[in-house]
Amino acid sequence: MSKLLDHIDSPDDLKKLNLAQLQQLCSEIRSAIIHTVSKNGGHLASNLGCVELTVALRRVFSSPDDAIVWDVGHQSYTHKLLTGRRKQFPTIRCKGGLSGFPNRQESKWDTFTAGHSSTSISAAFGIAEAKALSGKPGHVIAVIGDGALTGGMAYEGLNNAGRFGKNFIVILNDNKMSISRSVGAIARYLAQIRTKPAYLRAKSHVEDALQHIPVIGGPVCDSITVAKTMVRSVLYNSTFFEDMGFNYYGPFDGHNLPQMIEVLENAGQIDHPILLHVVTKKGRGYSYAEENPDTYHGVSSFNILTGKPNAKGGDNFSSVFGSTLCSLAEKDSRICAITASMKTGTGLETFSRRFPKRFFDTGIAEEHAVTFSGGLASQGMLPVFAVYSTFLQRGYDQIIHDVAIQKVKVVFGVDRAGIVGEDGETHQGIFDAAFLNTIPGITIFSPCYYDELITDLHRALYEVPGAVAVRYPRGAEPFRPADFLRTGRDYDRYGPADASCAIVTYGRLFANACRAQQALQEKGIPVEIIKLNCIKPIADGAVQAAADKQTVFFFEEGMQQGGIGEHFLYLLFSKQFCGHAYLHGIQDFVPHATAAQCLQSLGLDADGMIQTITTECKN
Amino acid sequence: MSKLLDHIDSPDDLKKLNLAQLQQLCSEIRSAIIHTVSKNGGHLASNLGCVELTVALRRVFSSPDDAIVWDVGHQSYTHKLLTGRRKQFPTIRCKGGLSGFPNRQESKWDTFTAGHSSTSISAAFGIAEAKALSGKPGHVIAVIGDGALTGGMAYEGLNNAGRFGKNFIVILNDNKMSISRSVGAIARYLAQIRTKPAYLRAKSHVEDALQHIPVIGGPVCDSITVAKTMVRSVLYNSTFFEDMGFNYYGPFDGHNLPQMIEVLENAGQIDHPILLHVVTKKGRGYSYAEENPDTYHGVSSFNILTGKPNAKGGDNFSSVFGSTLCSLAEKDSRICAITASMKTGTGLETFSRRFPKRFFDTGIAEEHAVTFSGGLASQGMLPVFAVYSTFLQRGYDQIIHDVAIQKVKVVFGVDRAGIVGEDGETHQGIFDAAFLNTIPGITIFSPCYYDELITDLHRALYEVPGAVAVRYPRGAEPFRPADFLRTGRDYDRYGPADASCAIVTYGRLFANACRAQQALQEKGIPVEIIKLNCIKPIADGAVQAAADKQTVFFFEEGMQQGGIGEHFLYLLFSKQFCGHAYLHGIQDFVPHATAAQCLQSLGLDADGMIQTITTECKN
Repeated sequence: MSKLLDHIDSPDDLKKLNLAQLQQLCSEIRSAIIHTVSKNGGHLASNLGCVELTVALRRVFSSPDDAIVWDVGHQSYTHKLLTGRRKQFPTIRCKGGLSGFPNRQESKWDTFTAGHSSTSISAAFGIAEAKALSGKPGHVIAVIGDGALTGGMAYEGLNNAGRFGKNFIVILNDNKMSISRSVGAIARYLAQIRTKPAYLRAKSHVEDALQHIPVIGGPVCDSITVAKTMVRSVLYNSTFFEDMGFNYYGPFDGHNLPQMIEVLENAGQIDHPILLHVVTKKGRGYSYAEENPDTYHGVSSFNILTGKPNAKGGDNFSSVFGSTLCSLAEKDSRICAITASMKTGTGLETFSRRFPKRFFDTGIAEEHAVTFSGGLASQGMLPVFAVYSTFLQRGYDQIIHDVAIQKVKVVFGVDRAGIVGEDGETHQGIFDAAFLNTIPGITIFSPCYYDELITDLHRALYEVPGAVAVRYPRGAEPFRPADFLRTGRDYDRYGPADASCAIVTYGRLFANACRAQQALQEKGIPVEIIKLNCIKPIADGAVQAAADKQTVFFFEEGMQQGGIGEHFLYLLFSKQFCGHAYLHGIQDFVPHATAAQCLQSLGLDADGMIQTITTECKN
Repeated sequence: MSKLLDHIDSPDDLKKLNLAQLQQLCSEIRSAIIHTVSKNGGHLASNLGCVELTVALRRVFSSPDDAIVWDVGHQSYTHKLLTGRRKQFPTIRCKGGLSGFPNRQESKWDTFTAGHSSTSISAAFGIAEAKALSGKPGHVIAVIGDGALTGGMAYEGLNNAGRFGKNFIVILNDNKMSISRSVGAIARYLAQIRTKPAYLRAKSHVEDALQHIPVIGGPVCDSITVAKTMVRSVLYNSTFFEDMGFNYYGPFDGHNLPQMIEVLENAGQIDHPILLHVVTKKGRGYSYAEENPDTYHGVSSFNILTGKPNAKGGDNFSSVFGSTLCSLAEKDSRICAITASMKTGTGLETFSRRFPKRFFDTGIAEEHAVTFSGGLASQGMLPVFAVYSTFLQRGYDQIIHDVAIQKVKVVFGVDRAGIVGEDGETHQGIFDAAFLNTIPGITIFSPCYYDELITDLHRALYEVPGAVAVRYPRGAEPFRPADFLRTGRDYDRYGPADASCAIVTYGRLFANACRAQQALQEKGIPVEIIKLNCIKPIADGAVQAAADKQTVFFFEEGMQQGGIGEHFLYLLFSKQFCGHAYLHGIQDFVPHATAAQCLQSLGLDADGMIQTITTECKN
């Protein structure tokens, strides 16, 4: 381990270092991040981009009195290294180790747990108002990326916080725009003048100079860039922020450490909401990441020297979803694909290239994406909104109002449904089955295998009326017994039909159930598996099959309360079922670990199922 | 009935009228609206404000080819009168009659069903893209109010639609800003020049003139005005909209019919997204409403001559909530109240006057409101977010992330929980129990009476850890049996403890259950009522009490699937309950009617309960 970082046990230790030492520290931090992420996977490019910014923040401000709120939180690794967690840093995203996101339960330095985008200004403003009301000391700083500004919540936050009568700092960490040398010169000039309170009154004198700063740089290359550019062109002129009630300062070079320190020192003295526009380079200091910041945004473990991932590629549910949608769209010009800033993650890259007119990246704007899909559908198009389960939570009201009530055909490709693993409690896709289950008229498919996904997508578009969600897990398809013959319909039965005990489950838990079934068979406990493919509505045949058993176990990779299992039990008991029924789902937020470890902790792996069933069958 | 309106069977009939006749028609429409709303209740001020705008839109555009999307939809009465529904207009908001909002199922002229704010730009843009892709003809126009622009979704819509390469019209119906005579002059001048495509290139010549238009008028009187003003000051200068990709034209006097017609005719010819800023007066043409537009925003039936409501005032759940919160805040300086533009509706007017520093109106920004509350709570404040059940759907993700995962104390005062009645399917509060039920760690109280609400609020703030929702119905407390003695705890039992049959219910359905119980007793069917006050978690004693019965009926004024009843049944059967259990909740969207009529249709009134129970007990 490197020398300086070894002696940083709290941010106060930064105050002892001189500028050269701080710069050496930044270099050590970058090494530590690259080293650890290459082993554990994680968010690389965004963390490398804000090393100097974080060091400057920690050097200038005195948290935890001064509260820093990280938007999304996937840029908080430097923050963790500097706040007493450097020794645990190699455990990041591992079971029992540090979270990959700020977490109030992990450290007093983590002001607000994050994970979803665009919340920081709202949370920080709440903290600032609380401090003002209760007379608590300290500055409040929200650090938000340019991508997060495409989410409407960020505007709501700005609109509300702008009326605050005290110091309140929003740092716009803009990692898309590069500063040309000439702009850098005027920026440094303005940085010095404009952040010194004494010079504020002279502001009007430099307005002319400001006019010469180009606000948009680089070619406009794809739709998300267009979306971001649109926002950028609006926001990055001081008028916008100043009209919202903020003083605007910038742009500053976020990798110029002495300048950042000076800027932040001055910012803390202004008795007003201020916005500091800081320009950083995603992936800074690791050439592969600098060149391909999108690829290195979130990564699996990789070889540092080559930049190549350790795991071999191959199909996964997202890629199968994407290629299936391309085949369907080839034949049907009504099909459109919508994503909220997750083109690569949801497997839509090929679609976006082949059908650019029918591809819509909305930015991080799930609410708009759902309602926009409803609008498309109202005119007879066939919109498919591909979205991670955890982010679809943002569109709950819009699914109800702008899809279900309209009685239109919108298909939701709900990616990363169920446990996602290392990203932890903020990202687990454990709510979608339950919240979609509350909405009248929506059909929900939950395939376990690629061929099921393909069939389900086809049925969603052409067979089933109204809105349909097709939800599938992160990663590749699981174990499949050679003798499993799927019907492609709403449910399948697998195993001895005369067994007195049944497992009912859906999605990839079927694979675990199959493994459990085999082990139980060897123990002399025959079990039939009733595999739900359509989890809303539930086929009567599936309920009847369970009702004929003496004992029924329902395993669910999602919230138990309000989930599919409770509804299944209701249907089961409505059939005058007289046996025993057990429900085993998720009862609480699920912390980070590998997906397999999470399922094990939850008792939803094969061993857990075996244990649950043998215990109950003994009694 | 008046003469001209009697001959308008479709918008095409408007094209036969000359300007004088159109103005006569506007006057007739106003009479019809005032007359009908005085009888049926409804949205008065917003509808009176956009009569000329709607007549102009219908005169110029040829729907349904030209699609008009009304934001929120509570300003669509004129639209309904002009689109073949004048004869049914007296039935508006009545059972079986017209909906008070645009409704795709009601008329081909209703492009998109609405009810919640800030969705129109997103929906309209989806419609516009669909038309472009499929080659369908017609303009697309979104009509959005200034209040709706405080919702982040509107920005998401603007940010996405701004990149459209074709005609797309957003009409900002601004009913807060009054045009002074001098501004009106320049506005008319600009209206003529700027909306004529031929003059567009001369735009720069009039920029100087534009600088003289004051963008903020009138005194800043309260926090919602501040929020709106903030947005207005940002938006109403052309820079903002033009940076978002829109051409900005305005402000125009929305009551100047010939000008509106000319402006709209020109707007339709521009090959680009454009924003027309139209200024209207809420309540226009009815003096009481003009003077007090907030009071006449949504009204019950009233006397036209005096403007006074027919029903006498008195306590309701909102007022009891508000006064209780005031008493508590008097003694505890940590208590804050938050509302998303519903200060009056949620009973917070007194609070806002007495504790202005601890009162926060966020505008129509439920997402921000939840996260802001989480921020306040993280610093030890006691935020209480008062919000209608239906609008809290917007904050589902934020409740999970920014409250539940943070493990902070936020209290949700969930007003209008359950059936609301006349506002219909978009406003029924039938989802909150189910979606809150999915969130780990949240406690939910569902009082039936004022004294329970008071106790529950106190428990929510001081006894129960973590987030708590206290949900209560619209209106006044229902029938209360004289011998009902509440314990003030999680559940109560009422009626013969030795009865073999139980009704389990919560909230105001308890009153209906009591009436049913009495009638059933007379029929020789004794029933005990198990009344849940805390519906999450459910007290074991309540489940045990039900488990001792032979037959259990669960009645629920909320979604059945994923609801409290299914969870109760799961708990019941986990106790090896061997009897019969029946669940009776809501299975579909509930159309408009009085709340009593809705409950009757749903079988959730006393008669419905009696019928369900006698039918089942006969079998």
